[in-house]
Amino acid sequence: MKKILLSGVKPTGRPHIGNYFGAMKQFVDLLNSGNYDCYFFLADYHALNFIQNREEMARNILDLTIDYMAIGLDPNKATLFKQSDVSAHTELSCIFDTLVTMPYLQRAHAYKDAQAKNVEINVGTFNYPVLMAADILLYNTDVVPVGQDQKQHVEYARDIAQKFNNVFGETFKLPEPLILEHVATVPGTDGQKMSKSYNNTIPLFATRDEIIKAVMGIVTDSGSDVPANVYAIHKLFRPESDLKTLYGANKGKYKALKEALIEDIDAFVKPLRERRAEIAKGENTVNKVLQRGGSNACLIASTKLIEIKQKIGVL
Amino acid sequence: MKKILLSGVKPTGRPHIGNYFGAMKQFVDLLNSGNYDCYFFLADYHALNFIQNREEMARNILDLTIDYMAIGLDPNKATLFKQSDVSAHTELSCIFDTLVTMPYLQRAHAYKDAQAKNVEINVGTFNYPVLMAADILLYNTDVVPVGQDQKQHVEYARDIAQKFNNVFGETFKLPEPLILEHVATVPGTDGQKMSKSYNNTIPLFATRDEIIKAVMGIVTDSGSDVPANVYAIHKLFRPESDLKTLYGANKGKYKALKEALIEDIDAFVKPLRERRAEIAKGENTVNKVLQRGGSNACLIASTKLIEIKQKIGVL
Repeated sequence: MKKILLSGVKPTGRPHIGNYFGAMKQFVDLLNSGNYDCYFFLADYHALNFIQNREEMARNILDLTIDYMAIGLDPNKATLFKQSDVSAHTELSCIFDTLVTMPYLQRAHAYKDAQAKNVEINVGTFNYPVLMAADILLYNTDVVPVGQDQKQHVEYARDIAQKFNNVFGETFKLPEPLILEHVATVPGTDGQKMSKSYNNTIPLFATRDEIIKAVMGIVTDSGSDVPANVYAIHKLFRPESDLKTLYGANKGKYKALKEALIEDIDAFVKPLRERRAEIAKGENTVNKVLQRGGSNACLIASTKLIEIKQKIGVL
Repeated sequence: MKKILLSGVKPTGRPHIGNYFGAMKQFVDLLNSGNYDCYFFLADYHALNFIQNREEMARNILDLTIDYMAIGLDPNKATLFKQSDVSAHTELSCIFDTLVTMPYLQRAHAYKDAQAKNVEINVGTFNYPVLMAADILLYNTDVVPVGQDQKQHVEYARDIAQKFNNVFGETFKLPEPLILEHVATVPGTDGQKMSKSYNNTIPLFATRDEIIKAVMGIVTDSGSDVPANVYAIHKLFRPESDLKTLYGANKGKYKALKEALIEDIDAFVKPLRERRAEIAKGENTVNKVLQRGGSNACLIASTKLIEIKQKIGVL
């Protein structure tokens, strides 16, 4: 039997090439490896901590579904669904809340960061690791692909699973993190990590004009032969052996090198952009994908929830 | 249209006469007044904060249902159901968590008490007011019968309803507390408030032997004509005009007065005890009552939840 792989993504807006090379592409590769039975969910209840606007939420959910279909995540091969379509996620989260102490949850990164910055967080953000444990454990998940900095999420899921198993008897499989290695941090146009909060992104489904604007805006340190920030992004789109020739022949010619990068990004993005536009025309089909995924996920999750409810004695 | 009344009770064990005169009897009276469309639920997910044992939870749920039926709460007139049968309660609680800040919830009594006593509480106890707000608001509840000390629960529900309405548009009706007035605090066998935690209770469905044991254990301050603790309990079972005669004729005769109290309690409890035993024989019928109530509640709650999910943009 195949191992079960699960991952969730918050529908919080347009993805950039950092998201793509850092996670989205990996998901497609993991699915296409044929080694896993894959569940990918849109974590809309997690996103609700940040997006409290009906139109924006609805738009983001649809957009992210289209994004994933456009990069080649085949909804006939994976279960692609919306967290809010499976009520068992929140129900199990509330069950887990009764097993978890305040001090234990106060040790989580998100809470500690907020405390350190003296930021007032909402209870949903505080409870995030518990809802995420429910997300993971409902599907008897074996592996959760995560970046090195997200290992804690899986650790919380493992801890909570063990706690439940100790109190109520063997119920949950302990998931393992599948660390996404060999993924260079994608640099943004200013050399920092590419991130929406730094305003240094190149959108994944950018138009040619957006690509030109973003690349022309890449910060270059005048004086050196090779513009480091241009090169660092270029590496994602062309083998370094090619780049050596190109950058060798264009020492100090920043404009020419940026133009070459524009062509390479556009060549890469164009088919994705076109596929995305095609899929976006069939909003109805996209909604059906989510409906089918939701039904599928509900079947698995509600079977598991019945087992859980019997264990705690409410069923 | 009738006003909607909702109340929840945690299935945490055998009720005593303090529970009966303080709340259970009031519920039956409110239902029988014919003025309300009543929802009574067994708050099993709230109880899970205290009872983490399969057999005990299952037993308590069944027992409490039987208890309510035995005191005359007619499941054909009210919707009597189990919280865990309606997944919308926990789902709405998680939605509300994204609207509520940590400092706001840290001001709740339960949390502050725990802090003051330096007790480690679990996240479920911390989140209690939010789940309770969801319990209440799902049913477009007009009134929630509460003791004076439970008013805060309804205030939290009102606050959270207003907050949601402000952010996402008019969705929730603001519930009002229905303060259970004229309810003398029922004293226990030691003169303190009757409470399981003081170990001073008289079980509501006590056997005659249990009544004898409890009454004989009532603490009396020798020396006075009227044993105050005996009299205080006696008042619940017989008009004070009667008692004056009885206690006047038996000054200082504690044993005789206790025996009179035993007879009065037993006369009151016997029919309840017998009805309870009768109902308990039909476990299947009791389960069907909960099933029917759950289906009924699900209809109302899931209709409301669809409205909520549309408002936040996930549906």
